[in-house]
Amino acid sequence: MPLRGLAKAKNFTLGPTAPMKTFTENVHSQNNEINNLKKIDKTHNLTNNSQNEKLYKYESQIKSSFDRIVPTLKEIARIQHHEDFINTAQSISKQNLGINLPTHILDKSWVKPLDMRALYAWCAFKQHEKLSDNFFENDPLEGSFGSPNANNFETALLDCGIHLLDITPCSDGRLAHSVAYVMRIPFSAVRRRSHAGALFDIENTVNRWVKTEHKRYRENNPNEAHEDTRYLKIVTYHFSSVDPLHQGCAAHGSDDKLAAKEGSEKLLAFKEAVENSFCCGASVDLMLIGLDTDTDSLKIHLSSSDGKIDLENTISSLDIYNSTINFSKDEAEKEICQIISGNSNKVQLKGLDKFVYKLIVNNISQIDYVKKFHKGSYEDIGHAERFIGVGIGFKEVHLRNLTYFAHLDTVEEGAPDLDVGVKIFTGLNVSQDLPIPIVIRFDYSGKVPGAKERAAKDCYRVNNAISIRYKSLVDKGLLHTCLTIRDRDNIHSAQIIGMSLDQKTKEAH
Amino acid sequence: MPLRGLAKAKNFTLGPTAPMKTFTENVHSQNNEINNLKKIDKTHNLTNNSQNEKLYKYESQIKSSFDRIVPTLKEIARIQHHEDFINTAQSISKQNLGINLPTHILDKSWVKPLDMRALYAWCAFKQHEKLSDNFFENDPLEGSFGSPNANNFETALLDCGIHLLDITPCSDGRLAHSVAYVMRIPFSAVRRRSHAGALFDIENTVNRWVKTEHKRYRENNPNEAHEDTRYLKIVTYHFSSVDPLHQGCAAHGSDDKLAAKEGSEKLLAFKEAVENSFCCGASVDLMLIGLDTDTDSLKIHLSSSDGKIDLENTISSLDIYNSTINFSKDEAEKEICQIISGNSNKVQLKGLDKFVYKLIVNNISQIDYVKKFHKGSYEDIGHAERFIGVGIGFKEVHLRNLTYFAHLDTVEEGAPDLDVGVKIFTGLNVSQDLPIPIVIRFDYSGKVPGAKERAAKDCYRVNNAISIRYKSLVDKGLLHTCLTIRDRDNIHSAQIIGMSLDQKTKEAH
Repeated sequence: MPLRGLAKAKNFTLGPTAPMKTFTENVHSQNNEINNLKKIDKTHNLTNNSQNEKLYKYESQIKSSFDRIVPTLKEIARIQHHEDFINTAQSISKQNLGINLPTHILDKSWVKPLDMRALYAWCAFKQHEKLSDNFFENDPLEGSFGSPNANNFETALLDCGIHLLDITPCSDGRLAHSVAYVMRIPFSAVRRRSHAGALFDIENTVNRWVKTEHKRYRENNPNEAHEDTRYLKIVTYHFSSVDPLHQGCAAHGSDDKLAAKEGSEKLLAFKEAVENSFCCGASVDLMLIGLDTDTDSLKIHLSSSDGKIDLENTISSLDIYNSTINFSKDEAEKEICQIISGNSNKVQLKGLDKFVYKLIVNNISQIDYVKKFHKGSYEDIGHAERFIGVGIGFKEVHLRNLTYFAHLDTVEEGAPDLDVGVKIFTGLNVSQDLPIPIVIRFDYSGKVPGAKERAAKDCYRVNNAISIRYKSLVDKGLLHTCLTIRDRDNIHSAQIIGMSLDQKTKEAH
Repeated sequence: MPLRGLAKAKNFTLGPTAPMKTFTENVHSQNNEINNLKKIDKTHNLTNNSQNEKLYKYESQIKSSFDRIVPTLKEIARIQHHEDFINTAQSISKQNLGINLPTHILDKSWVKPLDMRALYAWCAFKQHEKLSDNFFENDPLEGSFGSPNANNFETALLDCGIHLLDITPCSDGRLAHSVAYVMRIPFSAVRRRSHAGALFDIENTVNRWVKTEHKRYRENNPNEAHEDTRYLKIVTYHFSSVDPLHQGCAAHGSDDKLAAKEGSEKLLAFKEAVENSFCCGASVDLMLIGLDTDTDSLKIHLSSSDGKIDLENTISSLDIYNSTINFSKDEAEKEICQIISGNSNKVQLKGLDKFVYKLIVNNISQIDYVKKFHKGSYEDIGHAERFIGVGIGFKEVHLRNLTYFAHLDTVEEGAPDLDVGVKIFTGLNVSQDLPIPIVIRFDYSGKVPGAKERAAKDCYRVNNAISIRYKSLVDKGLLHTCLTIRDRDNIHSAQIIGMSLDQKTKEAH
């Protein structure tokens, strides 16, 4: 279904940062303080403020648990030669970070300087473990499988003519919150596969398409195969409105146009692969979205009725936000419908138009989130990830700049993605003499005999390949790994099956 | 469907080599020459003698094309300082092997000893290229997709209640002819995935099952999804009747019982994976077969109606051959039916019983093939492969001891299989100062945009991983690689996209 709002939308000028800059400048101006405070407080009438509060509480709680690691370890470093060091260190750690430190590392402080790199990696792994446990046990983002949010969203998706939503954002940590925050989609209702440059694997995605269709034929799940719905593949590339020439997508040399073009080419190749490989009108729907990593606003590319993706013309959620900021809820909804479909009647929205409407309304909340909690534009416009996630899984990670993803089965195939991650962390951590914490994860299906053992074997295999590829970092204690597996058929949390920190202990005995 | 012949079959004692040894001894005895000649000539009444003649012609033609390499290169080595060396060498090679030698290697003979290792690898690669071209262009085994043989077999398979036949033999080169020779199955009518120890990948096979079922639902191909047929997974492990303790399966330490047990466990795990992961009575059929690599006879394990595989009791094609050698065609057919199903009426055979009947009759021809052309038991009872095949594909290889397969996507995952191959060739070739020729292959679907380029990239990636893993061999010129890709949607042959031999040339210029 084409987005027919082009005629109306094309006169929008995105002026990437203009509205935000004006806003930020106003905030800092001393002259119109009262007026500005009103502006700060003013949110869009479509914004879900209570959801924003919850999301911010979650974000700040998790991030501070990582950001307290360095000050805590500094405090512990200072007392390493004090009496009763181990007990004091443990109680500081427990109080500040809520975790115990590994005794076998603290134990050695009398004979050699405390291995702060090992402690740093340990703390990062344990904070990740806590966030992961909390995620799977308490569903803090209220988006788990079977939750009311997930069920409602899945029904709404079907109503938009979509039976599977498959999103590939860039591996970049600044897009790790795309699903739960930027698009406000329950995490369990979407397939997410992050790749550097958002350049997903065609063969793998065709396999996923086959599995999805087979489930419809065999189990009528989520709907019957003959119903006229589609598999929707979305590519989310990214750009920076604040520093477009340096803080865009590294995989595309910060060239927005190239990122959009290559994303579009991948999408069309996927569609062609499905159409050529299967009979009986097999096809998929496609969507290309640009994400501004500074404001979290979206540029949704228009597609024509013949299936082409328009690289120039987009619907900008930020433009819509700005132009409707003073509208009532009802007026704003009508205006968005008008822009998308050329018709202001919400009831008449159909198919992908309806889905785009949903995305824009959801994203308006996120624009206000960034305005309210991050001064309209993130302070960390560049990379600031806390750890690298390698393997298959990580359903629990939904925060901006928390994790650099390298979605891979083998280091042999995924090395280009992983190299980018290691390069980023060489700047972030190694330059400060801190190690790169890498969490390895392989999800498995507990229903399949031996799958758990194979997932563990995959972890060890990837760990071994990492230790060969980045030997010089590993040898200096500047790269540590934590091996985890998780049963995807179960609500249970992930399980740590080993750490590079453990192995050293064993060797020492 | 259970094999109900157990009661009748269990008293068979396989006495692994007794009949064959007697036969061989007889052949060499001078006293009963006439009598023995009769025995030599006598074939089973169910044997397809004209097919045997064709198959032998093909086997001897291809194998001799490889076996002429060493004598030819010896001849060329002797004349490397003669006048007009290059032209003479080319004409010897053309005459003996039907190929040209690489001029850039011959060219250097005046300045350093001729690089015989490089020439050997070149010849192996070119002979493989010829066999491959011939295979795809002329269908010498008369089993290509759409051929009368393949169509008839597929119809017969459906009649046995099987809509896909998926066989995993061991990677061992002594099983590479399992499909086209030992079982006499048209190669295009079967999915073959060789793995060391016949230990196939469960997740990968479940994916293949999903694809197969999806095709039935979507395209009614090969039959409608509601029809009561199954996906049949066969594991073919192997043993040696001549030297059971040394020439069995290396992956199982030449322990037949262990090979059978582990094969059975994989099969049952695959079935459980399908049954647990999919609803609505999803399941598969299983079959465990032991292959005697000396006589090519089969031991087909009985399965019970509750889906268990009997590790002790088997139907032995060699026992059947021996006990029915003097029977008429009709009597022999009745006896086989009786053994399989407890009923001598062929028309009443159903399902897997019918398939087992077909396998045994086909295998009787192969037992006669080995009797007639290989003195009842192969001379090369151990390894004698000519090259290693690595990657995804090799539909063209159907000869015993021609190729060691390492079926893999990445060296990182497939290293255990590949290491076994390199070890075998260290004994076969490196010990004689000859290099290990490795043909890398990635099949791709020409219908999928960019798939060809990705297959080429996969070749280079695996080539690079091989050159890292086996660096010391590569550095000495004791391991060479030939990179090939092939469009599986097309009848065309494979295409060589590079060789380690080429790369050296480039560096030299």
